[in-house]
Amino acid sequence: MQQNGKKIALIGAGNVAWHLGQALAAAGHTISYVYSRTATHREALAAKLPAASPLAHLNLQHTATDCAIIAVPDAALATVAQELQVPENALVVHTSGSQPLQVLEQKPSIRAGVFYPLQTFSKEKPVDFSSIPILIEAQQEQTRQELKALAESLSQSVHMVSSEARKQLHVAAVFACNFTNHLLGISREILQQANLPHELLQPLIQETIAKATAFHPFIVQTGPAVRGDHNVLEEHLRLLQQQTGYRQLYELLSASIAATASQPPQ
Amino acid sequence: MQQNGKKIALIGAGNVAWHLGQALAAAGHTISYVYSRTATHREALAAKLPAASPLAHLNLQHTATDCAIIAVPDAALATVAQELQVPENALVVHTSGSQPLQVLEQKPSIRAGVFYPLQTFSKEKPVDFSSIPILIEAQQEQTRQELKALAESLSQSVHMVSSEARKQLHVAAVFACNFTNHLLGISREILQQANLPHELLQPLIQETIAKATAFHPFIVQTGPAVRGDHNVLEEHLRLLQQQTGYRQLYELLSASIAATASQPPQ
Repeated sequence: MQQNGKKIALIGAGNVAWHLGQALAAAGHTISYVYSRTATHREALAAKLPAASPLAHLNLQHTATDCAIIAVPDAALATVAQELQVPENALVVHTSGSQPLQVLEQKPSIRAGVFYPLQTFSKEKPVDFSSIPILIEAQQEQTRQELKALAESLSQSVHMVSSEARKQLHVAAVFACNFTNHLLGISREILQQANLPHELLQPLIQETIAKATAFHPFIVQTGPAVRGDHNVLEEHLRLLQQQTGYRQLYELLSASIAATASQPPQ
Repeated sequence: MQQNGKKIALIGAGNVAWHLGQALAAAGHTISYVYSRTATHREALAAKLPAASPLAHLNLQHTATDCAIIAVPDAALATVAQELQVPENALVVHTSGSQPLQVLEQKPSIRAGVFYPLQTFSKEKPVDFSSIPILIEAQQEQTRQELKALAESLSQSVHMVSSEARKQLHVAAVFACNFTNHLLGISREILQQANLPHELLQPLIQETIAKATAFHPFIVQTGPAVRGDHNVLEEHLRLLQQQTGYRQLYELLSASIAATASQPPQ
């Protein structure tokens, strides 16, 4: 265990808690408790962690907990935070991209913070925490420093970001991750309808991302919409005429590309 | 030079011709001519190719050309094909994703084909042709075999694809490449407005693509829309209220994700 190893209670056993708990344990911290409403969930994650007990309630007042990390769905966060009881001076942080720090400050005595790992997590897929940006926030300088040390024990990319900026970042992440994923799904469906293997598009997708990383994407935009190639646009809309949803997306995205092309970024 | 090296005339000196010409020369073919309407363009590309002369007209009838590769904008393709004159028995192919083979068959004597490298090309960025899918098409078996050999001299991923299926593939590529790039551009703009470095989102983008490659993207969809998290959706729409275009995209993409979630792929 590292010298500054913390005694941590994980509140939640979903995708974020699953990966974060194991990464924290690997970094030398002690995960003492795993709380989840669902017995199988808390037991499954506790079994992955050397020193953890599954916990069915939220009263940690008489435990040796340094830090409680709340990783529950946004909708449950306020209620869980309200119910949670921790020892005096323990940190209480949440891992949400969209929730403000305030949601934890209903209890004024609490040393509250945000500890948001900016990544998409699925239980099936291991992740390397060392490159995941961790965005932290706290009111008090002492709390900030402790959270920073905790985050730096996992990742080389630690950033102090306010609740307001984190919200903007979360919107940006929805565009870059959730919406992008949906478009990749649509392209896969279209290939399947044409009986073409989805692997055909992989080199194109890889190169698109490589280029969008090396340059501002608006600068390297290609395709019929940015060229103003109306013949191709109309042909594509004709091909999509049976798929109203895809067709609407095609139209709106093409219009957005055309509008951006006429006003490039500075 | 490899044994079956072809004598090739490149008709066009844009992004596709730029990379394709150099890859063909490296594979042992001889690029004898580079045609472009613009003198600086044909001269710049010819200078990159050991045996090439810049060409200001489209009459190749009395040259030793085995194959003319037309890599011009879609809108110019029919006119260029009509003007182009090649020796008897020479192949004439185009490199367009959206144009049918037919566009070359106005002259019935021609051995026409399609030679479509499925990739996004920019002059600044080198590409590795060996992994780029090349989609070929021709009416005659002999022509098909010659095109296949030509394509296989560049790439390990060569596919016979009909004009109709290639059109579908092109639509899918617009979703996977052009639209995805646009969304990445929007996310970058949003980060910039919040004074956050765009590198913050890179690990998330990489992981999104890795996941969407390993699984069907619809199966691994994450985010507020697929969770039906209306609080976050409304908060994000509020944050985007000054940016009508982004807001419309956010709404339509979220609705599309929600609709897909209720009807997952088979």
